[in-house]
Amino acid sequence: MDIDELSGQGEAIAEKLSGYGYGEYDEPDAKPEDRKITYAEGNPIIGLEKFLGYYDDMLNIAYFPSISMNTDFSKAKAFCRYVKEENKDAVMMDGEQKPAYLARASKALERFKSANKIKGSFQFYIKREKRYSDAKGLGESAAVASATANAIISNAFGEEALGNRHLASRYARLVSGSGSRSASGAISIWVSYPKIREKMAYAVQTKTDYSKLNFVAFPRKLAFTTASAHKLALSSDFYAPWVSGKYRRISGLIEEGFPMEKMLKYAQEDMFRLDALLASSGAFIQDEVSLAIIRDAQAFSDKNPGLYITADTGPSIIAMSTDKSLLKEFLDGKQGFIEGSVTDQKSRSPSNHDAEEANSFFETLR
Amino acid sequence: MDIDELSGQGEAIAEKLSGYGYGEYDEPDAKPEDRKITYAEGNPIIGLEKFLGYYDDMLNIAYFPSISMNTDFSKAKAFCRYVKEENKDAVMMDGEQKPAYLARASKALERFKSANKIKGSFQFYIKREKRYSDAKGLGESAAVASATANAIISNAFGEEALGNRHLASRYARLVSGSGSRSASGAISIWVSYPKIREKMAYAVQTKTDYSKLNFVAFPRKLAFTTASAHKLALSSDFYAPWVSGKYRRISGLIEEGFPMEKMLKYAQEDMFRLDALLASSGAFIQDEVSLAIIRDAQAFSDKNPGLYITADTGPSIIAMSTDKSLLKEFLDGKQGFIEGSVTDQKSRSPSNHDAEEANSFFETLR
Repeated sequence: MDIDELSGQGEAIAEKLSGYGYGEYDEPDAKPEDRKITYAEGNPIIGLEKFLGYYDDMLNIAYFPSISMNTDFSKAKAFCRYVKEENKDAVMMDGEQKPAYLARASKALERFKSANKIKGSFQFYIKREKRYSDAKGLGESAAVASATANAIISNAFGEEALGNRHLASRYARLVSGSGSRSASGAISIWVSYPKIREKMAYAVQTKTDYSKLNFVAFPRKLAFTTASAHKLALSSDFYAPWVSGKYRRISGLIEEGFPMEKMLKYAQEDMFRLDALLASSGAFIQDEVSLAIIRDAQAFSDKNPGLYITADTGPSIIAMSTDKSLLKEFLDGKQGFIEGSVTDQKSRSPSNHDAEEANSFFETLR
Repeated sequence: MDIDELSGQGEAIAEKLSGYGYGEYDEPDAKPEDRKITYAEGNPIIGLEKFLGYYDDMLNIAYFPSISMNTDFSKAKAFCRYVKEENKDAVMMDGEQKPAYLARASKALERFKSANKIKGSFQFYIKREKRYSDAKGLGESAAVASATANAIISNAFGEEALGNRHLASRYARLVSGSGSRSASGAISIWVSYPKIREKMAYAVQTKTDYSKLNFVAFPRKLAFTTASAHKLALSSDFYAPWVSGKYRRISGLIEEGFPMEKMLKYAQEDMFRLDALLASSGAFIQDEVSLAIIRDAQAFSDKNPGLYITADTGPSIIAMSTDKSLLKEFLDGKQGFIEGSVTDQKSRSPSNHDAEEANSFFETLR
């Protein structure tokens, strides 16, 4: 891949997005207050033009822009407390304080603190609420990234910073690349390309009218563990042509104003390419149940155009249509799916129960 | 794809193969005799550097050279009768005279007759003997191509023409591209690239020592029907980089003298790429049984290097090793596989039973 060429193509895409609110933004000064607790929520994402493979895996910069929609299949709820003592960072998620959680947070936290000259520590109490028991590929890590980024910026910069979605998107990106799109909300495009300035790698909404979009998920666990999908994808002979196609299609989508139907079609095609990238490295993410849904959907849409499927890095299949009755017809007799909606605004108010749990956790850190 | 560039790379590969018997050859004059019947057999192939996608689908010229091994998993037996009457071509295979069989044969027959100024008709009685009940991806079409090509050339040119494997390989190619490698025998490379002279698109043996190679097949039917794998592959964004990789790897293999162990490794990697090409077009060829074997083999070979798997366009998985005990260890407790060997020479003598069946069929064509 010619990095300078990608960089130039990325800049051209960035310029085209000025009408979507993409551009320079002010960075507020941090004013952290000892023992202040803030709260935010985040939703998961489903990729339309999907993302795999970091150009810069320290700053979470992707090789190309990507598009996804926020969904309500699950929700991440994050409490953030600042304490002025150093070396007191902590992460509790779903009742567990795994070292891996703190390790992952640390990369983003160190960057956040140094950029904003903050010396103290941030402590997180995170809970995920899912509308399914377990699944892979429904974008939960983006939800966590978005919730924690919003929680930390309202903590460090004050509640008013929550209005600055660029800032939230940028910092969510440091936790998980796709978090940038989750923090941006609705259907968003993440501006990311080689050599982009770190501050400018964030997502903006596509303004697509999604009011007619109907979709469901068939949640499904991954049958086996695999190496990092990002690394597997990068090691594929097919990564470079995937990247070329991304720039070509995304430029076209911007010029056409992100048409919903075309994005659904692209989401289906990109699912197959993503499966192919991983398969070419020996990782097959579909199983007999997801394959049966895929084949059903292919047979159905051959006869009934307008039904689309997609999936990210897991066997959880999404079926989508702007025609509600068509989707209903496809689902007739099927089980194990949940209906979804595109989400945008999130609640900023925790339940009393959650707030008490979070306080109890923070007390243990004294 | 830059066709002239591929053509140049193909010529360079052809030149490197002169030490393997690749080069110009004499074309004997046809001397067909009315009502003469000949017989030949052919074996199926398993791709090592696999092939999909015709550059010229009239002449069956591929975009790149490919390598495969002949196996004894099945056998095609072909009787060929020449009659001087025109428009009396006929094909009976496995007891059926499907129009599709004759249609497929016609393309090759017309070419064969016009190249050799033959006016009459060729009639085929073909039987397949399989060591499994039904499967996809075990190379049966190559076996039929090889058997029929050998039967027709011994018919039209005389028995001595069977010593001319270049000729048999060339004409087998007209029935099915991979037939060229089957007719060449053992482990062969098919010289094929854009703009190659038709006469020169045939396979030669790699001279690889396969005496230590052990392998088995897990025969498996395809769970669904799909469009032509050749067309699906060509429609993929990932076809071009697959082609580039082919030229790079095959050039390297020739320079190193076709090392067995490396070809097994490549066969596994190319299986994943081939699955990926088809998946990127929405066709998933593995099923829950083949996926379980693939994952078993991956887990096994992570701990025990030297075991390889491969597959062509179907869920029939081949497990291979140059270490017999390693393969045995992998197969311990597994069922549903058959052992295979690399084949080279084929019998030229039919059984009395088959000969009687063939004669009865030919009598019905009077």
